[in-house]
Amino acid sequence: MMNRRKKVSVIGAGFTGATTAFLLAQKELSDVVLVDIPQNENPTKGKALDMLEAGPVQGFDANIKGTSNYEDTADSDIVVITAGIARKPGMSRDDLVQTNEKVMKSVTNEIVKYSPNCIIVVLTNPVDAMTYTVFKESGFPKHRVIGQSGILDTARFRTFIAEELNLSVKDITGFVLGGHGDDMVPLVRYSYAGGIPLNKLISKERLEAIVERTRKGGGEIVSLLGNGSAYYAPAASLVEMVEAILKDQRRVLPSIAYLEGEYGFEGIYLGVPTILGGNGIEEIIELDLHEEEKSQLEKSAASVKNVMTVLS
Amino acid sequence: MMNRRKKVSVIGAGFTGATTAFLLAQKELSDVVLVDIPQNENPTKGKALDMLEAGPVQGFDANIKGTSNYEDTADSDIVVITAGIARKPGMSRDDLVQTNEKVMKSVTNEIVKYSPNCIIVVLTNPVDAMTYTVFKESGFPKHRVIGQSGILDTARFRTFIAEELNLSVKDITGFVLGGHGDDMVPLVRYSYAGGIPLNKLISKERLEAIVERTRKGGGEIVSLLGNGSAYYAPAASLVEMVEAILKDQRRVLPSIAYLEGEYGFEGIYLGVPTILGGNGIEEIIELDLHEEEKSQLEKSAASVKNVMTVLS
Amino acid sequence: MMNRRKKVSVIGAGFTGATTAFLLAQKELSDVVLVDIPQNENPTKGKALDMLEAGPVQGFDANIKGTSNYEDTADSDIVVITAGIARKPGMSRDDLVQTNEKVMKSVTNEIVKYSPNCIIVVLTNPVDAMTYTVFKESGFPKHRVIGQSGILDTARFRTFIAEELNLSVKDITGFVLGGHGDDMVPLVRYSYAGGIPLNKLISKERLEAIVERTRKGGGEIVSLLGNGSAYYAPAASLVEMVEAILKDQRRVLPSIAYLEGEYGFEGIYLGVPTILGGNGIEEIIELDLHEEEKSQLEKSAASVKNVMTVLS
Amino acid sequence: MMNRRKKVSVIGAGFTGATTAFLLAQKELSDVVLVDIPQNENPTKGKALDMLEAGPVQGFDANIKGTSNYEDTADSDIVVITAGIARKPGMSRDDLVQTNEKVMKSVTNEIVKYSPNCIIVVLTNPVDAMTYTVFKESGFPKHRVIGQSGILDTARFRTFIAEELNLSVKDITGFVLGGHGDDMVPLVRYSYAGGIPLNKLISKERLEAIVERTRKGGGEIVSLLGNGSAYYAPAASLVEMVEAILKDQRRVLPSIAYLEGEYGFEGIYLGVPTILGGNGIEEIIELDLHEEEKSQLEKSAASVKNVMTVLS
Repeated sequence: MMNRRKKVSVIGAGFTGATTAFLLAQKELSDVVLVDIPQNENPTKGKALDMLEAGPVQGFDANIKGTSNYEDTADSDIVVITAGIARKPGMSRDDLVQTNEKVMKSVTNEIVKYSPNCIIVVLTNPVDAMTYTVFKESGFPKHRVIGQSGILDTARFRTFIAEELNLSVKDITGFVLGGHGDDMVPLVRYSYAGGIPLNKLISKERLEAIVERTRKGGGEIVSLLGNGSAYYAPAASLVEMVEAILKDQRRVLPSIAYLEGEYGFEGIYLGVPTILGGNGIEEIIELDLHEEEKSQLEKSAASVKNVMTVLS
Repeated sequence: MMNRRKKVSVIGAGFTGATTAFLLAQKELSDVVLVDIPQNENPTKGKALDMLEAGPVQGFDANIKGTSNYEDTADSDIVVITAGIARKPGMSRDDLVQTNEKVMKSVTNEIVKYSPNCIIVVLTNPVDAMTYTVFKESGFPKHRVIGQSGILDTARFRTFIAEELNLSVKDITGFVLGGHGDDMVPLVRYSYAGGIPLNKLISKERLEAIVERTRKGGGEIVSLLGNGSAYYAPAASLVEMVEAILKDQRRVLPSIAYLEGEYGFEGIYLGVPTILGGNGIEEIIELDLHEEEKSQLEKSAASVKNVMTVLS
Repeated sequence: MMNRRKKVSVIGAGFTGATTAFLLAQKELSDVVLVDIPQNENPTKGKALDMLEAGPVQGFDANIKGTSNYEDTADSDIVVITAGIARKPGMSRDDLVQTNEKVMKSVTNEIVKYSPNCIIVVLTNPVDAMTYTVFKESGFPKHRVIGQSGILDTARFRTFIAEELNLSVKDITGFVLGGHGDDMVPLVRYSYAGGIPLNKLISKERLEAIVERTRKGGGEIVSLLGNGSAYYAPAASLVEMVEAILKDQRRVLPSIAYLEGEYGFEGIYLGVPTILGGNGIEEIIELDLHEEEKSQLEKSAASVKNVMTVLS
Repeated sequence: MMNRRKKVSVIGAGFTGATTAFLLAQKELSDVVLVDIPQNENPTKGKALDMLEAGPVQGFDANIKGTSNYEDTADSDIVVITAGIARKPGMSRDDLVQTNEKVMKSVTNEIVKYSPNCIIVVLTNPVDAMTYTVFKESGFPKHRVIGQSGILDTARFRTFIAEELNLSVKDITGFVLGGHGDDMVPLVRYSYAGGIPLNKLISKERLEAIVERTRKGGGEIVSLLGNGSAYYAPAASLVEMVEAILKDQRRVLPSIAYLEGEYGFEGIYLGVPTILGGNGIEEIIELDLHEEEKSQLEKSAASVKNVMTVLS
């Protein structure tokens, strides 16, 4: 075959995994294999078929296959991991970490077996530690194991700013460092509306309130839904990373990357600005941080390390 | 305001309603109001917010509002109805019809109150009878009350044909008349691959098997999912109709339309080829049917009439 | 008609006008009327027909009409003016201004006659003075007469920066004030790569060279082409403005706007950051400028005023 | 590089070549190299740069390089040939054929030298004979040398039908066999509006008039333009073929293909329905033709053979 279609496998056919598969197909970025455990094989096939049947109407042409058999993922260019459990009431954080660590290891072994040259993008929480687990288990070079959190955090920040200013979200940019969740470090001084620094347009109080809302953005959705968590924006964020890699775009996007000295950290995965291209993470961009930002980032890293102590 | 954004309200924030809202926003066709009952207000808000947060990443700019308050739908250009219950094990068909009839009446009154000039597109099953109910309750002229089924049925048929022939679904066209479900009347002689009639490319037996699979296409998904029904392809189908109307495209698309003599039927809603444009259904296209097709269409109409006897 | 298609007329069917018409149709933003003088009616019709014939292949559905009769522009939502002559060797600047002023007046009268409620976007050079002429001649309120230059200037700046850094142009933003051409005032401190200020990524010397290349960006193309001037990027820039207005996006985009005190100027059209929405220019954003920037902007304004002295 | 960008070279930087380059970049299908003769190197660079500068505005990210050096085309996945002269008043057809034959040979040698594994798509007229020349000169297998004419002819036919019926061009399909121009064989019985055969919707007389207009569709544009020929629709048609190949879509599209017995012809290139996928022409679809269609196709083939006698 002279011009082979790209192939992306998505592990985990829950709402985020399924939506990721759909958005990939919609953009005709690749054929898609949606994988879940054998007990969920039929629903997974059902979702894949339903998406496929949307193709003629939406005008996209991509194969979408639901399966529980990892053989179907063979020779994927990229594998996205959304599998794992969400924290439930009464479950300790350590239980969550240990359960998902096992899922990551098992999934990673299957990925490596069938797609030894792929790039892996991880979404499963706690995402910094889980990306580390996949990195270690896969034996892949660091540029080929990447976690997602910053695109999503930034998207939420941009949404809130656009609403605050009653401006198009197209012209709002944001910038986030560090771990996902409460520890994230939004760099407000690198965030703009139409290129204009936000602090010229929004009062300090409102800006702080929006930063705080962003930090808790995942929880806001969880709390509204009552049962389950966000999946549209997370899926869109994963697709942004996949597109940058498949099309070798050299985008400047925040990724959870393995640090070996950058920003003063060693041996952990943390959210930093990166260049995403055909090889995965092609570069980590190091910024000079203010003292306060540094200490926030250290707090965020400490929190990641703390989770990592639970890993086996 | 010189250039007002279009506004589409989607009633029912289940999977189909939510996906419809997302696909509308993605195409920047309009702002979207997603409505559900007060008990579901928070989850509806949560879904809307999650979609909105995907906007900065996917590059679309549209307001998406979740609500249980019909005031928010005021002055909609189009209202899409996906509300209602699905048939559950042990529930009689008549129970389903009567329950959804009540939902349609209640929803229609709210729509008419707040958007007296809108066009209504109905998806709720049994869709032919429910579209009739909305038509009667609204008092709207027939061209402004339209049901969806044929685009979805055709999309499934096209998907199966593309798979059978290993060809791009972009080049497969299909044609379906009559009611949704087992009674649909696929006009195979008006279905093509790259313009070539399908019977020149596929054996009679395989073609019949594919027609049969299309008839049961909704059930296939229900059976695979185990819990719930298709929503990606139904949502895409609704969006196709909304786009044709908002952009005044005069598309040739199958709609559930009110017949006053066309095809020999009077006073029922049935799936027929129509021209969809800025005014809704601008024309019903009448085709000469073969005897067998005629009798199939009569059977389909009888089945719709039979459901209508259950209406209050 | 309940859902009327939008209508945009493009005056001047040269390369820029024709490309603008094509890009508008491609996006299905509106139907398009392409107008040129009677002597060019046939070529204008030929271009329009050729574009129309690309529709089935590219999948867009928009009417494109070539004409020399302004009646065909009746009730346009937006009219884009690209008509006028380009400066030729041996022609004085004053001759250019006076010739194009006459064209603007004649064109404006026709526009006002047939589309008294439209918004006008001007591209013809010298664009600051020509936009002023159209404003005066039309009698329209200032928010409905807008000139284009900053989007194009910024696009060139972004292209050069992306090339310099070998990064995706998607992540580069730029910011330009003032008149078009040598007098433009690129605000480098408001220009970023992935949100990171450019001066952290590019040396001062290279940045100055790129600013200089941007200032002369139009001339670079003229000089390469040998005969004629740029049209792809100018047309794309016009379409960006039209889209922001038709979709009421409230984009933060640089426009040539009528100043009544903003930035200390009175009664001239000058390039400033604006909010473009359904009403045209909905707001002018005033920034605090550094001393050097202020003096550059004053120089730019003086240059515009100087051209305006030539106006009748 | 794990995910390499695709590369398409376009030979000939006239209007069609330039527009093809732009449409390819817009779709982010590949990086593009636009090649013309050394005398045109600067204008070619100018056009490429102008297109590139439209990227930030239109939101596409693709390199576009203008050059006269074939080394820049090295390792192209696809090469599109638009080079050659157009017939001028007073020029005999044989002169045209012989001049363009020389161009084809020279261009083909450069292509083969730098991209020995590419697929070549030819547009230069007379396209059937020129595709044959490229095939012979390249030594490539037949599935990798393809001519364009049927997509363009069909697009024109669809445009005229949509206009006649006042329907969206999205729902009109057409079918054309044979050579480009007056000898083309439109298969009206395989052409539809919304799946409905055209002869049910349009009178025989009007349909014949539209077929005749389609046959002379290129001439209609030439005559209107006065100077030059169509380029928007031809470029869009080339891009459709390139997309089908790069994305391995297995589209059913008309191509000028090398026949070895199909339709009773041997050793000539002729317009026939084909399956276009990752390998180029993956299959020729043979249809049963009516007697009249057969004789028209024979006439068309005879005309192609007649041109081929002029080849050296």
